[in-house]
Amino acid sequence: MPGTFESHDTVDVIRAKRDAAELDDAQIDWVIDAYTRGVVADEQMSALAMAILLNGMTRREIGRWTVAMIASGERLDFSGLSRPTSDKHSTGGVGDKITLPLAPLVAACGVAVPQLSGRGLGHTGGTLDKLESIPGWRADLTNARMMAQLESVGAVICAAGAGLAPADKKLYALRDVTGTVEAIPLIASSIMSKKIAEGTGSLVLDVKVGAGAFMKDVASARELATTMVALGADAGVQTVALLTDMTTPLGLTAGNALEVAESLEVLAGGGPADVRELTLALAAEMIAAAGVTDVDPAVVLQDGRAMDVWRSMIAAQGGDPAAKLPVAREQHVVNAPRDGVLTRLDALAVGVAAWRLGAGRARKEDVVQAGAGVQWHARPGDRVRVGEPLLTLHTDTPERFDRALSCLEGAFQIADTDVDDRLPLLIDRIT
Amino acid sequence: MPGTFESHDTVDVIRAKRDAAELDDAQIDWVIDAYTRGVVADEQMSALAMAILLNGMTRREIGRWTVAMIASGERLDFSGLSRPTSDKHSTGGVGDKITLPLAPLVAACGVAVPQLSGRGLGHTGGTLDKLESIPGWRADLTNARMMAQLESVGAVICAAGAGLAPADKKLYALRDVTGTVEAIPLIASSIMSKKIAEGTGSLVLDVKVGAGAFMKDVASARELATTMVALGADAGVQTVALLTDMTTPLGLTAGNALEVAESLEVLAGGGPADVRELTLALAAEMIAAAGVTDVDPAVVLQDGRAMDVWRSMIAAQGGDPAAKLPVAREQHVVNAPRDGVLTRLDALAVGVAAWRLGAGRARKEDVVQAGAGVQWHARPGDRVRVGEPLLTLHTDTPERFDRALSCLEGAFQIADTDVDDRLPLLIDRIT
Repeated sequence: MPGTFESHDTVDVIRAKRDAAELDDAQIDWVIDAYTRGVVADEQMSALAMAILLNGMTRREIGRWTVAMIASGERLDFSGLSRPTSDKHSTGGVGDKITLPLAPLVAACGVAVPQLSGRGLGHTGGTLDKLESIPGWRADLTNARMMAQLESVGAVICAAGAGLAPADKKLYALRDVTGTVEAIPLIASSIMSKKIAEGTGSLVLDVKVGAGAFMKDVASARELATTMVALGADAGVQTVALLTDMTTPLGLTAGNALEVAESLEVLAGGGPADVRELTLALAAEMIAAAGVTDVDPAVVLQDGRAMDVWRSMIAAQGGDPAAKLPVAREQHVVNAPRDGVLTRLDALAVGVAAWRLGAGRARKEDVVQAGAGVQWHARPGDRVRVGEPLLTLHTDTPERFDRALSCLEGAFQIADTDVDDRLPLLIDRIT
Repeated sequence: MPGTFESHDTVDVIRAKRDAAELDDAQIDWVIDAYTRGVVADEQMSALAMAILLNGMTRREIGRWTVAMIASGERLDFSGLSRPTSDKHSTGGVGDKITLPLAPLVAACGVAVPQLSGRGLGHTGGTLDKLESIPGWRADLTNARMMAQLESVGAVICAAGAGLAPADKKLYALRDVTGTVEAIPLIASSIMSKKIAEGTGSLVLDVKVGAGAFMKDVASARELATTMVALGADAGVQTVALLTDMTTPLGLTAGNALEVAESLEVLAGGGPADVRELTLALAAEMIAAAGVTDVDPAVVLQDGRAMDVWRSMIAAQGGDPAAKLPVAREQHVVNAPRDGVLTRLDALAVGVAAWRLGAGRARKEDVVQAGAGVQWHARPGDRVRVGEPLLTLHTDTPERFDRALSCLEGAFQIADTDVDDRLPLLIDRIT
C-alpha cells in the first residue's frame, strides 16, 4: 500500500527484479503509485522496465501491476446503459482500419461500443488520426457526452481522457524511448489496464502476428493473448482473443483518409475480402461476448444498418459523413516489374513507407497528413502483369517519395507460382 | 564517431544490447558522447545500463566504452614531473583508510602519487570526507596547484575536477539510483576511465572481496580485477591488482576522524597489523610498478620519512597536521556478552552502522559528522571477556544509536574456539 515504503526503497525494488525475484503486492502498488506521483523518477522506471523485459514477471505480478495501474486513475461505469457493452482492441498493425466499420456494425447489432482510442506513433496508424481526416470530426468528448452518445447512437470512438490509468500513459511514453516496448508483461498490463478502467463489460482482443506486428511469431502472440485473457477474467471482463495475420498489411490501403474510404466500402457491403472477413469475425465475437445471440452481423452489414450507425456516430462528433475526404497533392506509381503471382507484401515495409510519406508521426507533437499513405493494387496470391500499377504512394510533400521508396525495396516478391505456406488470416482463438 | 548517428538511434543501441548483441565502436562512441551532451536522456542511459548489467559486454566493448568515457573530458599529463607516478584505487570497503598512510609512504619512497578521490556514498567511506575532519584541510585544488604539490611534496589527495571523464560522473550518479551499480563492465570502465584520464603512469588496484565489498565472492572479484588490468594495459598504464579480504572491516575503526587517527598510528610505526600489512603490500606494488626497486617501504615507514611527507601534504592543502581531531559528543559502548573468541565481525553491518551514526551520507547533499563512527576493540581471532567493551559507537546525535545498534545485531559471533576458514587478507595478485 502507498505509504508503507519510503522513497529510498525504489532501488530495492529495481534490484529485486534485476535479480529475477518476484515482486510482492506492496512493492508493485508502491512503485506504480510513486511513479504516478513523480517520486519514482523516469530513469528508475526505465531501468525497472528493462529488468522486467529481460527477467519477466509471473502471472500474479502482471495481474497486480495491472490492478495498480487501474487504481492510478478514474474508472468508468457503463452499467447504467440500456444495452450491454463490448469493446475491441488490436495490438496494432498496418492497414488495420477494422475499428471503423466494426464499431457501428456491433452497435447496429444491439451492443454498445465504447472505443477509447489512441493516436499513431511509429509505423502503426492511429484510429483517431484516421477519423480526423473527416472534416469537422472531433476526438475529444467529456465522459458525460460519451455516455450520452453511447445511449443514443450505440457507438463512440474517442480519445481516452487523461484520468484513465495515468500511470500507463506515463509508462507507455517512457517505454517508447527506452527500448522497452516489447515486453509481454508490460504490453498486456498496458492494454488491459486501459480497457478495464474504461469499464467495458466484455472485450475482444485482436492479437496481430507477423512482420508488421509487435509479436513476430505465433508462440509469443499466443503468450500475450493468454496473459490478457486471464487479466480480463480476473477483472470480471468477459475476454476473448483472436490471433490474426499481420505478415501482409490489411486491405488495400495504409493511411488516414485512404483507410476511411476503404472502411466506407466495407460498410457499403463491399471492400477487400480480408477486411470484411475480419470485421465480421470480430463482430460475431463481440456480440456473443456481450450475450447477444440472435443477430447475424453479415445481414446487418449488408442491409445498411451498420452504415446508418456510422453516419450518426460521425455526425454526433461534429463530422460531416457526406463530406469529400482529403486527397494527397502528389501521387507516385510503382509498376509491377514482371508478370507472375504476388507472393509477398511486407507489412512492416508498407507501414514504414506510409509513415514516411506523412501518414504517421515520429514524435507525439508531429502533425499527420490526412491524404498521405500507400495503396497496393494486388494482395499476396493475386496475379500481376508487367507494367501495370502495383503500388501508389500518396503525399503532400513529394520530397518524401525517395525515403518511402527506399523502404519498399525488397518489400514485395513476384514469382511464377504462388507459395503454399502463408498463414491464414484467422490463426487461432483464445478464451 | 559523433555525428554519424542521429539521435533517434538511441533506441536502436538500447535494443541491440537488450537483445544481447555486441555494440560496435561507433555505437559506443556515439552513445557516450550524446549522453554527455544530454542528447541521450537519463531514462535511456539507465535502460541501457540495466541491459548491460543483465546481458554483459565483451572485453572489446568494455575497452571502447572506457576510451569513450576518457574522451568525454580532459586528460592530465604528469610526464613533465621529475619522478615517476603511481596511483592506487580501492573498489571500496569498510574501515578502508589505506590511502591516508599509503600516499605519503609511496611519495617518501620517491614515487609521486596523484590521488584524485571521491566522497563516500552509502556504507563505504570517502577518503575526502576523512581528510576533511582535519581542521583547515581543503579537497579542491586547481590542476596547476596539484601539479606543483606533486613536484614539491610528492603526494596529493584531492577532489577530481569536473573536467575529468564527465560522462563517468553523470553515469555513476545515475547508476546509484537505478540499481545498476553492480555490473562488472560498468564498474571496471568507471574506475579505469578516471584513473587513465588522471594521467598516472602506473596503477595498483585493491579489489575487495566479501560482505562489505561490491564483489561478494572471489570469482567475481577476480573477473573485475582481470578486466581492469587488461584495460590498464590497453591504455599503456602499468596495472597490477591485489584481491583483498573485506569480510571483516579493516583495522579497528570506521568513521572519518577515527580513521585519520588510526592512519597516524600507522605512520608513527604502530597501528593495527592488518592496516600496516596492506599499506606495505600496496606500497611495494606501487613503487615496483613505477620502476623503483631499491627502496624498502617498511624502513621508510619506520624511520618517520612517511610521516614527514604526511605533514607536508596536509599543510600544503591548508590543514594543520598538529591540530586535535574532532571527537563525537556521545559514545555508546557494547560489551562482550560472553567469554570466548571473536570469530566473525561483519564488514557490511559495521559500515552501515557507521553510516547511520552520521559518518556517511544517504544523498550527495548530506553533511557528514567528522567524529561519528564505530570502533571495535577486538578483531576476528582475538579472545574477548564477558562485560569488557567490544564496540564503541560515536555520534553527535544520540537519537541515531538505536538504528545503528539494530544493524549490529547478529553482526558478530563469539565462540569457544576459533574457526579455521577465514580468508587471508591478501587473497590473490593479478597482473
